[in-house]
Amino acid sequence: MTARKPTMADVARYAGVSLKTVSRVVNGEPHVSAEVQLKVSAAISALGFRRNEAAARLARGATMLTIGLVMENISNEFYSRLAKAVEAAAAEHEALVVFGSYEERPERERMLVESMYARGVDSLIVVPSSGDHAWLARHTGLTTVFVDRLPPGQDSDVVLLDDLKGGRLATEHLLAHGHRRIALISDDVRLSSVHDRATGYREALGTPDERLVVHGVFDPWRVSQEVARLLDLADPPTAFFATNNRAAIGILQALRERPERPAYVGFDDFALAEVFNPGVSVVRYDIDRIAHSAVGLLLDPSGRPRRVTVPVELVVRGSGERGA
Amino acid sequence: MTARKPTMADVARYAGVSLKTVSRVVNGEPHVSAEVQLKVSAAISALGFRRNEAAARLARGATMLTIGLVMENISNEFYSRLAKAVEAAAAEHEALVVFGSYEERPERERMLVESMYARGVDSLIVVPSSGDHAWLARHTGLTTVFVDRLPPGQDSDVVLLDDLKGGRLATEHLLAHGHRRIALISDDVRLSSVHDRATGYREALGTPDERLVVHGVFDPWRVSQEVARLLDLADPPTAFFATNNRAAIGILQALRERPERPAYVGFDDFALAEVFNPGVSVVRYDIDRIAHSAVGLLLDPSGRPRRVTVPVELVVRGSGERGA
Repeated sequence: MTARKPTMADVARYAGVSLKTVSRVVNGEPHVSAEVQLKVSAAISALGFRRNEAAARLARGATMLTIGLVMENISNEFYSRLAKAVEAAAAEHEALVVFGSYEERPERERMLVESMYARGVDSLIVVPSSGDHAWLARHTGLTTVFVDRLPPGQDSDVVLLDDLKGGRLATEHLLAHGHRRIALISDDVRLSSVHDRATGYREALGTPDERLVVHGVFDPWRVSQEVARLLDLADPPTAFFATNNRAAIGILQALRERPERPAYVGFDDFALAEVFNPGVSVVRYDIDRIAHSAVGLLLDPSGRPRRVTVPVELVVRGSGERGA
Repeated sequence: MTARKPTMADVARYAGVSLKTVSRVVNGEPHVSAEVQLKVSAAISALGFRRNEAAARLARGATMLTIGLVMENISNEFYSRLAKAVEAAAAEHEALVVFGSYEERPERERMLVESMYARGVDSLIVVPSSGDHAWLARHTGLTTVFVDRLPPGQDSDVVLLDDLKGGRLATEHLLAHGHRRIALISDDVRLSSVHDRATGYREALGTPDERLVVHGVFDPWRVSQEVARLLDLADPPTAFFATNNRAAIGILQALRERPERPAYVGFDDFALAEVFNPGVSVVRYDIDRIAHSAVGLLLDPSGRPRRVTVPVELVVRGSGERGA
């Protein structure tokens, strides 16, 4: 006797069929014999697997396995790449993806999740805002995997990047090219990803000059203003570490108008990073791996929260290799 | 007596309530009084408005008004901007968006539409591939609006850009800066958008040198090879017109490796267009207007195919203003 909720894998084992077959039956897909359908229905009943919902689905015939993807902003390249990767990973399981953006407003994030839940979406991949997520706990039928950031106030499956290592790699790379005055440009430090990237930077530097540490800037235009302000200091930075793609783009914007040629390393690859001259050196990771891990956790739920960490690497293209 | 299908607006008129209220009732949204629900249900019955489906929805309680968005590739900036704009336009009607990419493979486009249809999506916004779309006609319950390109073999509502004018504007701008040898870099000329942009180019030039007209290149890397090949001609072009954002990016890539400094104008704005030095001059349009028009046509269906043309304008940033 175990307290954990029965999973689709349990149903498959009980019925003596594959996980894929269970998914087909639950989603009312074609190409399943009546005999197999009966076996799976019996297993679902016996185990009490999401009983009402699965039964309702079977009764209705065909409905979709739909994954809700809740993220900050689909037009930011990180999110559009993630959406594409999740779509591809979901397609392998014949699932559709519903997506929504919350624009870094926790109340809109909650509204999106509630609305998806009310409309029958039972699997969620969420890039959480910095707001508390305790309200999620009352949606007992909702399988949720968080991606990119730890959700405050919620113990769930989560897929994170090795942000700490990324921050350290970027900063050590700049140190190795002779830089000592390295500025940090980052956004909301309450996000675990930003926090960990900043911690990696601090660990590599030892004692950063706090006047060179910038938090809370979100859009490229604000970043470019901060970069200009730092370059105007009596003792300006000779290098920058940008903790996301928007910060890197803000640095590029600022340098268009400035004579200085500081080094810089970004976090998050972007399509045009190679096209600039010099190319933009970045901390990179495999976004398909994030998506596959998240979809994999969703389709094989467990009673205990699990954590997957996706590795990062430094890609050298020129902007981080300018000397001090 | 009219042959056209009754619309939600007809239901609203018959019931004496707003369109918004009808949408709320059909979608099982809260905050509708029992009296209003009855009125709307009666109107739906009387008019035979999507009878079975609406009735089924009302019986089931709450389900979603879901718009399927079928496009080439969510990670291409044109599509991620479009997705964001459609999401925002749909949210005004409390609708969700399901999206899918077909990667310019007509058979995958059809599979996506069939799968969305089978799963209950009844409203589609499609950026069509160059394949024939006659198969769509048999899905009688499926309200479809095409966007960006005319679908071959299908008479439907469509939202297009003023592509012809865009092609002419870009080319005339380069002519005004003294260029005579202007190359065209474009992808699949069977797409109405590409065809019309190329036609605008031809009309402005009069008699283009056909050796400078390149069709059928899709990714930036192939574009950069074509640009290099053209620049190596004995009589090379002094300017380029790129019919989409990927072509513009391919030109930027090629010029990183080359000493020549030709002028160029792109079609489609992109986030980093201003960050390059010089900035990339482009033909631009309001993508929110495309999305609003498409959602508006979906929610107010008509018996006759309608066409909306969204205007374009030239944005001058430097790359198109280099002299011959």
